[in-house]
Amino acid sequence: MNYKAFDSCDLDFIRSAVSDPARVLFGDALAEEYSHDELGGASSRPDVVVQIVSAREASAVMAYANTQHIPVTPRGAGTGLVGASVAMAHGIMLDTTLMNHILEIDEDNLTVTVEPGVLLMELAAAVEAQGLFYPPDPGEKSATIGGNISTNAGGMRAVKYGVTRDYVHTLEVVLPNGKIVEFGGKVAKSSSGYALKDLMVGSEGTLGLITRATLRLLPLPRKTISLLVPFPTMAQAIRTVPVIVRSRAVPTAIEFMNRNVIEDAENYLGKKFPDKQSDAYLLLKFDGETTEEIEAEYESVAQICLEQGALDVLISDTEERDETIWKARGAFLEAIKGSTTYMDEADMVVPRKSVGEMVEYLHSLSEAVGIRIKSFGHAGDGNLHAYILKDDLTEEQWETRMHQAMDLIYEKARALGGHVSGEHGIGWAKKPYLKDSVPEENLELMRGIKHAFDPNWILNPGKIF
Amino acid sequence: MNYKAFDSCDLDFIRSAVSDPARVLFGDALAEEYSHDELGGASSRPDVVVQIVSAREASAVMAYANTQHIPVTPRGAGTGLVGASVAMAHGIMLDTTLMNHILEIDEDNLTVTVEPGVLLMELAAAVEAQGLFYPPDPGEKSATIGGNISTNAGGMRAVKYGVTRDYVHTLEVVLPNGKIVEFGGKVAKSSSGYALKDLMVGSEGTLGLITRATLRLLPLPRKTISLLVPFPTMAQAIRTVPVIVRSRAVPTAIEFMNRNVIEDAENYLGKKFPDKQSDAYLLLKFDGETTEEIEAEYESVAQICLEQGALDVLISDTEERDETIWKARGAFLEAIKGSTTYMDEADMVVPRKSVGEMVEYLHSLSEAVGIRIKSFGHAGDGNLHAYILKDDLTEEQWETRMHQAMDLIYEKARALGGHVSGEHGIGWAKKPYLKDSVPEENLELMRGIKHAFDPNWILNPGKIF
Repeated sequence: MNYKAFDSCDLDFIRSAVSDPARVLFGDALAEEYSHDELGGASSRPDVVVQIVSAREASAVMAYANTQHIPVTPRGAGTGLVGASVAMAHGIMLDTTLMNHILEIDEDNLTVTVEPGVLLMELAAAVEAQGLFYPPDPGEKSATIGGNISTNAGGMRAVKYGVTRDYVHTLEVVLPNGKIVEFGGKVAKSSSGYALKDLMVGSEGTLGLITRATLRLLPLPRKTISLLVPFPTMAQAIRTVPVIVRSRAVPTAIEFMNRNVIEDAENYLGKKFPDKQSDAYLLLKFDGETTEEIEAEYESVAQICLEQGALDVLISDTEERDETIWKARGAFLEAIKGSTTYMDEADMVVPRKSVGEMVEYLHSLSEAVGIRIKSFGHAGDGNLHAYILKDDLTEEQWETRMHQAMDLIYEKARALGGHVSGEHGIGWAKKPYLKDSVPEENLELMRGIKHAFDPNWILNPGKIF
Repeated sequence: MNYKAFDSCDLDFIRSAVSDPARVLFGDALAEEYSHDELGGASSRPDVVVQIVSAREASAVMAYANTQHIPVTPRGAGTGLVGASVAMAHGIMLDTTLMNHILEIDEDNLTVTVEPGVLLMELAAAVEAQGLFYPPDPGEKSATIGGNISTNAGGMRAVKYGVTRDYVHTLEVVLPNGKIVEFGGKVAKSSSGYALKDLMVGSEGTLGLITRATLRLLPLPRKTISLLVPFPTMAQAIRTVPVIVRSRAVPTAIEFMNRNVIEDAENYLGKKFPDKQSDAYLLLKFDGETTEEIEAEYESVAQICLEQGALDVLISDTEERDETIWKARGAFLEAIKGSTTYMDEADMVVPRKSVGEMVEYLHSLSEAVGIRIKSFGHAGDGNLHAYILKDDLTEEQWETRMHQAMDLIYEKARALGGHVSGEHGIGWAKKPYLKDSVPEENLELMRGIKHAFDPNWILNPGKIF
């Protein structure tokens, strides 16, 4: 695509289109952090950043960009890992972080309406204060809800509660032509035309800019209990997961983790983890209304774990201990990042019963390719995070081995019937792998959909396909 | 759209494209029932019906129709209510009812893979025999799963378990150009490009023909208990629903019903309903692993009902009684149909807290317009079914008053933030109402999506928009 180069006339227009020109950042005022996201693999500087405060402002800028053929990149907190919020074609960046208001908590319909820049931790705090619960729970709590919707974020409670898609009722969206539309509604179900709302979820800012979302809530469970279960080997730990799933217990979360990742988290947080007797752990969470209700569930699961060879079952039923464990779990990404010079990530998802095979493959790969790989993830839903670490490899070694490892990881995931990304998206960095794993027909349909929303391809170009 | 008229050469080709020409029905062999669906409001005869047995056959016919510009209409059991499976532009009908095999029950991944012509009751029986559970539960058990996916069917367990969309993992789809593609996967979550699978769900056979589906299952709950709760007035019954929802109980179903509809069901089934002391009822269902677990839930709900003025709370905890009640509930549509000469239906969904207002409006409308209206539905998710009855009205009176009532019903639903259809779809019959309730921008996006999938508009033309 050929885009118009951004010039001073464009800047003048944009400054006139927003209520406060101080929210238009360019030149020295444009911080370096806008040039990349959390992983830094994709890097490119936008010509201008507009900190929008309303759909109307976004609409004015977008309509102008559309007629002028200037690329527009939506951006939340920039916590992404695949470059989806990096302005690879330069142009205008729309920063939504000032649109951070919680507009309504509707206790009759059990919904919350938010602006896209609300952070996940702010959303959780607000609804929990009313005894309500927004179930999706990605590790990165300082991500915006707009970004979570754009990647169909999953997180740690997906085993029981599903993913972000399952909680999005309504989206207000600014289309690339500047029109402000609404998809979905405050209704519990609908069969009224194509699922535009579901199409927006996970579209990584390529179809429209989300400016408001109404999300479904549940009553906040009164009790939670976690089990930390050391196993002699990771193979045994993972083999236990389908047995738990086939039993009638429904844990909120089933995570797996290695001692080396736990140690990274200890170093990163400066806080001891409650147990390190083993190399391999399952971490499970249960929630419910009463202690008795949860007990019945976790006792049967504890029994299963022991039958499958668990060394111990540590019950965490105090808030303090629970926080220690889950805080460590939430910090894994940052902790691993802190343990090496540079890293890249694969976020494949495989059918639940193939998790063991995938984990073993990742383990064997490290030696085969000659590069350190750390992994953890959501054993209960088949979504694994593998981190390939640069350590003290030379640039050349890194490029060769990292790509070799990535190729092999996605090839294996594909062979197991898996997908490239479970929750982090495709963005810029994972495009080649999506292309390899999805038939051309499907990509062609996606391009057709993109064309229907954005005929001039101004919105977040170069992403996904 | 101008389509090519179907001729004997087309027939010759189609007969050559299927393994057994006896499955190509035309002339006298083409039964009258293929000309309409369950409600009969849309009526049109296809030129030919092909009872396909494989995706390959569907692909051959579709690719031919695409090059020849002949319309193709997918059809399951024909139990629809809005004409979505009626060949309004004539041409070729693809009947999927012979593709009725259950291909795999995967107990490790908790999935079932089926052909599209499997009936809902066959699916339920097969998975329940393995101790598994397919939660969506529309009243019409002789509908095909392909049709259920195409309308994103909801049903009676949506309050707790959600709708069909929530249980579709993978779809094999024949595109209008004849290509066979797969959307989704046997993975519990994905963020790998646009949500093509979710777009297919609810697209009413306009984007592709579903030839295989992998569906998510749950463990079959061990215990279910129902509560039948008579109230002095429907207003009191409905007002109780948000109180139940705000409490922490999660019933599987919350249905409302009037005595007159119960009496229709008694007449239709020739079997007595357990209670008829009142005009207005709530019917609730609870499920779980143990009697104790369910008891704790239903006792609190029973208490709430009594506090809100319920006359009684009848507990149904035997399989026999439960079947009597739910069989009656499942037969409401047919029973109402049997109680009048002709009828039409509105399937609006409104925000949960507006159900009471909508029900009262429906009641008042009957007198205002001078036409009988019966309603029942899913109080717990806001999806109401209103049946407008012809009785002994003249054709002219019927046309005038029915349209007047429909217009007013959808106007009211719209004013409450509702949608035209909660679960039955738009099809042919509800197009004008979708047009009135959805902004032109949204319809334009839907048309763009349709164009991406079906540039020649051969597949199920004239439906939805």
